[in-house]
Amino acid sequence: MRFLIIGGDAAGMSAASRVRRKRPDIDVTVLEMTGDVSYSACGMPYNIADGQRSIEELVVRQASVFRDKLGVDLRLGHRAEAIDREAKLVRGTDASGQGFDCGYDKLLIATGASPHIPNIPGLDAPGVMALKNLEQGRAIKEYLASRPVKRAVILGMGYIALEMAEALRARGLEVAMVKPRPELLPWMDRQLASTVYDELQANRVEIHAGCEIQEIRQAGGSYEAVCSDRVLSADMLLVATGVRPNSRLAEEAGLELGPAGSIAVDRSMRTSDPDILSAGDCADAFHLVSGQRTWVPLALRANRSGRAAADAVAGQPVELPGVAGTAVFKTFELQVARTGLSLDEAAQCGFDPRGRVISAPSRAHAHPGSSTIQVFLLADAASGRLLGAQMVGREGVAHRINAVAVALQAGMSLAEFAQADLAYAPPFGPVWDPLLTAANQLLKAL
Amino acid sequence: MRFLIIGGDAAGMSAASRVRRKRPDIDVTVLEMTGDVSYSACGMPYNIADGQRSIEELVVRQASVFRDKLGVDLRLGHRAEAIDREAKLVRGTDASGQGFDCGYDKLLIATGASPHIPNIPGLDAPGVMALKNLEQGRAIKEYLASRPVKRAVILGMGYIALEMAEALRARGLEVAMVKPRPELLPWMDRQLASTVYDELQANRVEIHAGCEIQEIRQAGGSYEAVCSDRVLSADMLLVATGVRPNSRLAEEAGLELGPAGSIAVDRSMRTSDPDILSAGDCADAFHLVSGQRTWVPLALRANRSGRAAADAVAGQPVELPGVAGTAVFKTFELQVARTGLSLDEAAQCGFDPRGRVISAPSRAHAHPGSSTIQVFLLADAASGRLLGAQMVGREGVAHRINAVAVALQAGMSLAEFAQADLAYAPPFGPVWDPLLTAANQLLKAL
Repeated sequence: MRFLIIGGDAAGMSAASRVRRKRPDIDVTVLEMTGDVSYSACGMPYNIADGQRSIEELVVRQASVFRDKLGVDLRLGHRAEAIDREAKLVRGTDASGQGFDCGYDKLLIATGASPHIPNIPGLDAPGVMALKNLEQGRAIKEYLASRPVKRAVILGMGYIALEMAEALRARGLEVAMVKPRPELLPWMDRQLASTVYDELQANRVEIHAGCEIQEIRQAGGSYEAVCSDRVLSADMLLVATGVRPNSRLAEEAGLELGPAGSIAVDRSMRTSDPDILSAGDCADAFHLVSGQRTWVPLALRANRSGRAAADAVAGQPVELPGVAGTAVFKTFELQVARTGLSLDEAAQCGFDPRGRVISAPSRAHAHPGSSTIQVFLLADAASGRLLGAQMVGREGVAHRINAVAVALQAGMSLAEFAQADLAYAPPFGPVWDPLLTAANQLLKAL
Repeated sequence: MRFLIIGGDAAGMSAASRVRRKRPDIDVTVLEMTGDVSYSACGMPYNIADGQRSIEELVVRQASVFRDKLGVDLRLGHRAEAIDREAKLVRGTDASGQGFDCGYDKLLIATGASPHIPNIPGLDAPGVMALKNLEQGRAIKEYLASRPVKRAVILGMGYIALEMAEALRARGLEVAMVKPRPELLPWMDRQLASTVYDELQANRVEIHAGCEIQEIRQAGGSYEAVCSDRVLSADMLLVATGVRPNSRLAEEAGLELGPAGSIAVDRSMRTSDPDILSAGDCADAFHLVSGQRTWVPLALRANRSGRAAADAVAGQPVELPGVAGTAVFKTFELQVARTGLSLDEAAQCGFDPRGRVISAPSRAHAHPGSSTIQVFLLADAASGRLLGAQMVGREGVAHRINAVAVALQAGMSLAEFAQADLAYAPPFGPVWDPLLTAANQLLKAL
C-alpha cells in the first residue's frame, strides 16, 4: 500500500513515523514544500527572544532520521498543487521547478495553517514578516541580526502576537501592537483581559486597539503604518493577525469543508473521500462541550490527529473524542489559559451561560511570594453543566487549567466539579483551590 | 436549636461560621481546648523556616471575629471529656480546672488528629517536640530562638517530617532523619522515591532508614537517640511519625469507628448517632476509586466536611462524593504529588493494577530551564480504569496532578484519560504533556 502525505510538519510527520513503525509493509511518501520537517514551531518566539541561540535548535528530528531510520520517502521542496481523486494522484512542482505526480492508495492532507495577511496596501512589501514556519522564524532572526532594528510594529494581538511582543522586548526593541477591533483578547472575560493589558503596559508595549491600518508605507529601511488618526513608524513589521487553514487543495478536489474553511473530518480523521484523511491545523474537530464542529489549530491536536490518521491507515482506527479548546500562553510574567467555551461561544451554541470571576491568592494564607490568580468559570444555567474556564496569573495557571479540561471531557456539572479533590500545600495555593472557590461562587449564581 | 462543636480548627470553625451565616436562629457553641482557632496549620513548617516571621501571622481569623461578627459562642481552653448521648450533653474541664457541661440538639465532633508518639523510652522528655497545632509550632519557634540549636533529629519521614527537614536546614541546622522501616515514602513508586531521596542527600539531610530507636537519652541540654548500631545526638528532637484521629470521645460514647480508628460518617457527615456529626481529620471518608471507607487527614477534606456538616445541621444536607487522596508537598526544590490509589492499595482493593513510570521534560524541546518530571501512572488491567498517579519534579507537578484527580472522580478509563485535551505552551511542558505520555505508555502495557 502507498500512503502519501502532503505536509511534513507535526501532523504529517507524526503520521509518517507511526505508520512506518506499525506497518513497515506500507510505503510512506511525504511531500513537504519547505526544506524543514519536525521542529518546535511554538518554540520560535522564545528562540527569537535570545539572539545567542540558533533557530536550528528547534529542530527535533533531522530529515535523515525519517529517511534512514524510519524508511520514509521524504521529499523536501515539493509543493503539492492538485489532487486528482479519480486517478488517485497528487500533482505538484519540486524545488527545481520540475513538475511531478505521485500516486496514492491513501492520502493524508496535513497542510497546516498559514498566517492570514490582511488586505492592506503595502503589506506585501519585502521585509514585512510573519511567523508560522521555520523559514519565517529564520528570516526574522536574520533580520534582527543583520540590521539595527529599534522599533517593531506588530499587527494583531493574539497568542503569537503577544508572545512575539515579549520576544522583541527581550531583544531590546520598542514594540507597538495594533489591531482594528477595540478589545484585547475578545474571547476573554473583560476583567481578565484587563490584567493582560496591564501586563503589556507594565512592560512598555504600546497598545493601539481599535486602530485600523489603511496603508503601509516604506521609507528607506523602515515602515510607516498609517491609521486614520496616527502614523506608527517601525524598522520591522510583523503580521500576526491569526492563521487560516491551508485547505485550498482539498476544496479544489471537492472535499467537504468545516468551520473557517478547514477540512471536515470524522472522529477517525477521514474526509468526505474514504481514501483521503486530513489531520493537523488544516482539519476540523468536534468540540467536547458543544458537540459541534470547530476549528482549533493547536499543537496537541495536530500531533494527536496525525497519530489517529496513521492508526486509520494502519487498519486500527481510533475515535478521537474531540477538543476542549484548551490553550495556554505566557506574556511577560503572566500565564494566560483557557479551556472550553467562552461566554459568547456558549451562547451561540444554545447554552444559557453564567460566568463568575474570582480572585484568589496563588499561595496559602501568609505564605511569602503569593500573587493573584483570576479565574473566570462558566456554566449552563439550564443544565448546571460546566462549560469552560479562563485564568490569568503569575504562577499556577498553566497546569491548573487542565483540571477543568478533564472535567469538560467527562461532561461534569458545575456542582460535581466543585467537589473535586484538588491538591493543597501552602507553596502552591490556598486550601480551597482558586478553581473550587470559583465553582462555589458560580454555584450561588446559577 | 443548639449546635455544639467540639474542636475549633478547620472543620469546626468552618461549620460554626457556615451555620451562623445560613441560619442565624441556631445557637452555635464551640469548645476548643487550646487557645487558638482558625490558623494555617500546614503553613507552620514554612513559618518555622524563617526566624524573622512571627508564627502569629498564620492566624487567619481572630477569635473575636467569630464571637463578635458571627455570634459564635467560642469557648477557648475548654476540653471536652465525655459525651452523654442520653442526656445530650458534653462534659469537660475548662482552663481553670473547673468542670462544665454543655447541652446540644446537634453535636459536631471535629477533634482532628494528633501526632502519634511512638512507645520509645525517654521520648516523653521535656523538649521533645511534635508539630500539629499552633501551640506546638510556637514552642518549636521559641526553642529555636532561645538556645543554640545546631543539630536536629527528626523521627519519621512523611510529609511533615520532610517539610520540617527543609525548614530546619533553612535555619542552618544539621538535620538527621530516622525511621524504623527501610523505605522512604513506602506508598510511592521506588524510582520516584529515589528522586526524593537524592534531593534530601543533595541538601545534606542525613537519612537513617531501617533504623529502630531503642531509647532516647538526655545529656545536658541535648539528646541521644540510641539505635542498635548507632547513636544519633541532637540539640532538638522532633517526632513526626504520623498522626492518629482523636476519636476517643466518640469511641467511649459508643459511636461506630472507621479505618485507623477514625469516626465513621456517611456522605453527609452523620455518625451512627443521628444527632451527632463528625468532620475534619478525626472522621473517615469514602474513597472515590475504591468506594471503600478510608482515612485521609488532609486540609481540603477537613474544610469541606466541616461545611457539609453545617449544611446538614442547617437542614440542607449535601452528599460529598469522597476523596481521591490527592496530596502535594514540597521538599527542598522538589514537588511531590499523588492522587488515587498506590499500587499496594489498589491490589488490596481487589484491582489488578499495572503501573508505568515515565520521565519527561518539564518544558518543550529546546526551551531553556527544563528539568525532569517523573510520572507514575497506574490502571486496572481488568477494567482499564485509571487508578492513580504519582509525580515528582522541580516544576509543574503541584497543579498537574489535579487533572488526574478529576479523571478519577469521573471514573475515567486510562484510554479516555489518554485523550485529555491538556494545555501546551513551550515554557510549561512538551506538546504531549507528561501525563499523556505516561497514559500512552501504560496503555501499551495493559
